[in-house]
Amino acid sequence: MLVARLIDNVWATRKAESLNGLKFMLAEIIGGSSTGQRLIVVDTISAGIGDRVIICTGSSARRMLEDDDIPVDAVVVGIIDEDCNFE
Amino acid sequence: MLVARLIDNVWATRKAESLNGLKFMLAEIIGGSSTGQRLIVVDTISAGIGDRVIICTGSSARRMLEDDDIPVDAVVVGIIDEDCNFE
Amino acid sequence: MLVARLIDNVWATRKAESLNGLKFMLAEIIGGSSTGQRLIVVDTISAGIGDRVIICTGSSARRMLEDDDIPVDAVVVGIIDEDCNFE
Amino acid sequence: MLVARLIDNVWATRKAESLNGLKFMLAEIIGGSSTGQRLIVVDTISAGIGDRVIICTGSSARRMLEDDDIPVDAVVVGIIDEDCNFE
Amino acid sequence: MLVARLIDNVWATRKAESLNGLKFMLAEIIGGSSTGQRLIVVDTISAGIGDRVIICTGSSARRMLEDDDIPVDAVVVGIIDEDCNFE
Repeated sequence: MLVARLIDNVWATRKAESLNGLKFMLAEIIGGSSTGQRLIVVDTISAGIGDRVIICTGSSARRMLEDDDIPVDAVVVGIIDEDCNFE
Repeated sequence: MLVARLIDNVWATRKAESLNGLKFMLAEIIGGSSTGQRLIVVDTISAGIGDRVIICTGSSARRMLEDDDIPVDAVVVGIIDEDCNFE
Repeated sequence: MLVARLIDNVWATRKAESLNGLKFMLAEIIGGSSTGQRLIVVDTISAGIGDRVIICTGSSARRMLEDDDIPVDAVVVGIIDEDCNFE
Repeated sequence: MLVARLIDNVWATRKAESLNGLKFMLAEIIGGSSTGQRLIVVDTISAGIGDRVIICTGSSARRMLEDDDIPVDAVVVGIIDEDCNFE
Repeated sequence: MLVARLIDNVWATRKAESLNGLKFMLAEIIGGSSTGQRLIVVDTISAGIGDRVIICTGSSARRMLEDDDIPVDAVVVGIIDEDCNFE
């Protein structure tokens, strides 16, 4: 999984039918040499802008959704505790 | 998923039988440290050149197509709203 | 999918039983910031050295083969038309 | 698989229901040109901070867990012997 | 697939139960702009240190093993012929 910070919401009115109702956010990887890489993630656990989160990618990401047929490859699986400090 | 801009159409007369009828486009990742990376995507939601889109990759990409047996690993799943601004 | 140029044939006499009969080629990604990255691909549509091709990777690549149990993660799925120009 | 060093624990009180009870750690890739890339991994074999470990990623990572429906894409599959030296 | 050179053996006494009996080796990608990236691979075709090999990754890698439930994401699928020269 990746450590990322949620930096904004993403709105896409025209999208795949099966994505309706999902919340998309822009995440930026923090820490390590991939810092600054960005990806769009689906959030189902009420994370907010500014939160440090754990991102799961690939086929495993679909395990967060109720339906395995949704075209999503990155989801927020956890919000890192504020007092959890690692460089 | 990735944020990308569609920059051109891609034509391939000789291709896998199962790809006939699909629309291929060249996309370039925008934003973050992967900016400038390119990939070919399948579009099924009538996106056009210049659009900022959400790209889903890997096995999840096949969820956009009606048939799981098509050799496609990247599809457009949404068109980002024009008034959705994020740096 | 990736845009790549086929640059050579690859011969491997000692290989997995299930790979016998498959044609392996060396491909180099062209265009965008991944230019110069190389991978070995399986070709089943009679592409040749010098051709610009569309490469499908991951589990989707196995969809080009008749058997889902073959250990292959990258295949040529199309040959880009010679008069298809994109920068 | 990747060679990485475990550098810290990761705590996330708010997370996917199915992740409860799993131990998350921060790993940093060592050796080769990906050195310094970081990812969060699940450990089920009692590895500790400072250990050099073998990380398995993607759908294969779920093979370490008893349940294929858990949204995890990276796990520790082995601890490299201390006297195993490679540059 | 990737072109890599096998550079060492990797020993991990403490590892996933299902990995017992498998031979792990350290491989380094050669050629192209990913040169120098390293990964740990499983070898089942008696490759040796110094051999140039073809590496298959991801879910396809598990196709080399008899059991789809083994947490392995990279395997040697072929040994490149010594007289096969490509720049």
